[in-house]
Amino acid sequence: MVLILISGYEIDLERALDIIKRAGVRRVGVQVPDGLKRSAPEISRIIEESGAEVLVSGDPCYGACDIDLQLCSMVDLMVHIGHSEMCESLSDRIVYIEARMPDDVTEVVERSLEFFTKERVAVCTTIQHAHMIDRVIGILRSHGIEALAGGPSPRTRHIGQVLGCCYAAARVGADEALFIGTGRFHPLGLSMATGMRVIAADPITGSVEEIETHDFLRWRYGIIARASDAKSIGILISKKPGQRRCVTARRLSSLGRSKGKNMLDVCIDRIEPERIIDLGLESVVSTACPRIALDDARRYGVPVLTPPEFEIALGMRNDYTFDEIPEACGEPEST
Amino acid sequence: MVLILISGYEIDLERALDIIKRAGVRRVGVQVPDGLKRSAPEISRIIEESGAEVLVSGDPCYGACDIDLQLCSMVDLMVHIGHSEMCESLSDRIVYIEARMPDDVTEVVERSLEFFTKERVAVCTTIQHAHMIDRVIGILRSHGIEALAGGPSPRTRHIGQVLGCCYAAARVGADEALFIGTGRFHPLGLSMATGMRVIAADPITGSVEEIETHDFLRWRYGIIARASDAKSIGILISKKPGQRRCVTARRLSSLGRSKGKNMLDVCIDRIEPERIIDLGLESVVSTACPRIALDDARRYGVPVLTPPEFEIALGMRNDYTFDEIPEACGEPEST
Repeated sequence: MVLILISGYEIDLERALDIIKRAGVRRVGVQVPDGLKRSAPEISRIIEESGAEVLVSGDPCYGACDIDLQLCSMVDLMVHIGHSEMCESLSDRIVYIEARMPDDVTEVVERSLEFFTKERVAVCTTIQHAHMIDRVIGILRSHGIEALAGGPSPRTRHIGQVLGCCYAAARVGADEALFIGTGRFHPLGLSMATGMRVIAADPITGSVEEIETHDFLRWRYGIIARASDAKSIGILISKKPGQRRCVTARRLSSLGRSKGKNMLDVCIDRIEPERIIDLGLESVVSTACPRIALDDARRYGVPVLTPPEFEIALGMRNDYTFDEIPEACGEPEST
Repeated sequence: MVLILISGYEIDLERALDIIKRAGVRRVGVQVPDGLKRSAPEISRIIEESGAEVLVSGDPCYGACDIDLQLCSMVDLMVHIGHSEMCESLSDRIVYIEARMPDDVTEVVERSLEFFTKERVAVCTTIQHAHMIDRVIGILRSHGIEALAGGPSPRTRHIGQVLGCCYAAARVGADEALFIGTGRFHPLGLSMATGMRVIAADPITGSVEEIETHDFLRWRYGIIARASDAKSIGILISKKPGQRRCVTARRLSSLGRSKGKNMLDVCIDRIEPERIIDLGLESVVSTACPRIALDDARRYGVPVLTPPEFEIALGMRNDYTFDEIPEACGEPEST
């Protein structure tokens, strides 16, 4: 193990160093998510000791969907920290080194037990706790609960692993779910995407709570209503390889045009309020990471919708559907 | 002419439309600088009338150095608005449509006459007034001044055209120069880069003034002094094709290491204060557009130096040299 400890995470560089040394890699790119960016100089120094030159990605990184393609083209090998492999077409150039949170989950899992009303419970988590999934399942089973976790999907690599845009691992035929992790976005998405009753247990803060979705739905339907009046609408297509959905974007543009809207297709790397204002758009539909429309919404002056929400706004869909990205690596560029 | 008027600029799309129609281009990318971004929906609509699909670049654009390469790879032809051609290796995929300011320059040029003390005066301007250069030269000559303007350079296309990073067109063997345009950055750079006494005449505001460089030098030497104490230093390498200077970056990293500094090479698209703080750097050297170190400096908490300033900080150069980028399209990636 060549271990780096940062902000409560463990990063083991051994596998990356093995590959670099064995293959005699000359130029290495390093990409680290924002919360762990401060570890980049140390990671860089350790890799340089193996004789390679290092180039660090200075731009933000939000996931394995957000591979720095330009850096990738400038180096012989990329070391991508903190996320599990996603885009297989890039995988021969990239080593994924996960960042694990070693915090024990036993206490929050035990405290979650009283919340469940069914015998069958789906168990899932984010990448930093994915190595704990067997322990979580074990605890639930020892209390007579049939805990189940789905296998890897095109976008995930671990049993029980979910992403903000992918809840495949939780679709195991249960009505209730236990989510292990931090923040409200994933458990909310999990509940919205699967219709399950979700108990969120946070091993860092120790909080255990049932996720409520009514406020979310009320809020989203309000935004959809506001967007319905917009005449000039932008369809945002991400440049990030795992968020690029050209086929969806083109379909939504055609739908909008068929309803008499002025549509503008916008290819964009970082979606920010100024960008939308600059383009004079009254509403936008983000085909990128669902967090942009859902988690960052309050930063924008205009309604930002997900693709299914836009279909509701156009009157072409009735039921609320959470936006998931099923493909391994975005969508092909050509139809 | 297929003319769009926006914020005092004229954009003639005729040449782009001719090419699109003649070649039957199917998918067109449109890139517009930030100040003119609001024209993107109209430009898009006009191009769509020719039967092509349009994809607009939503990210900021700062010049012909800042071609949206990812959008470029997704379309058959790019229409780049507001700048003259720079990177020749990309030119078969890009049509450059300049944005001209039609404002007359006669009055400010006549008012500049009394400032000159020499018979020979270099005349230069930025792209939006470049079509006025003959008129400027004519006025000066009619008053007995030998006005001269240099030809195109690897980074510029017009007689007398300068960029923030390239003052080649002003090197005509004169001691005094007339700069036609807006803002202080270009005339200051012109004076610092060439050593000429510079008179700046702004046809928009009507102001005519002699450029003073002492304050600038005092300020930069203060920043250089602060940077001299930094131990951990980042070398920023831009992803923008016309700002990418890998050879310079590598040379500066080696220099820093030879002086006992902890160097981190950072590949970055948008250089922003948060990015530098995230990486825990005490100082950075920007090999990208010189405006980042010089014009935006007050936004950063740490000293941001240009390459020649870093050499002064390391004690390897004495004279202050303004940072210019001589190459047509950045530097090759490999040494």
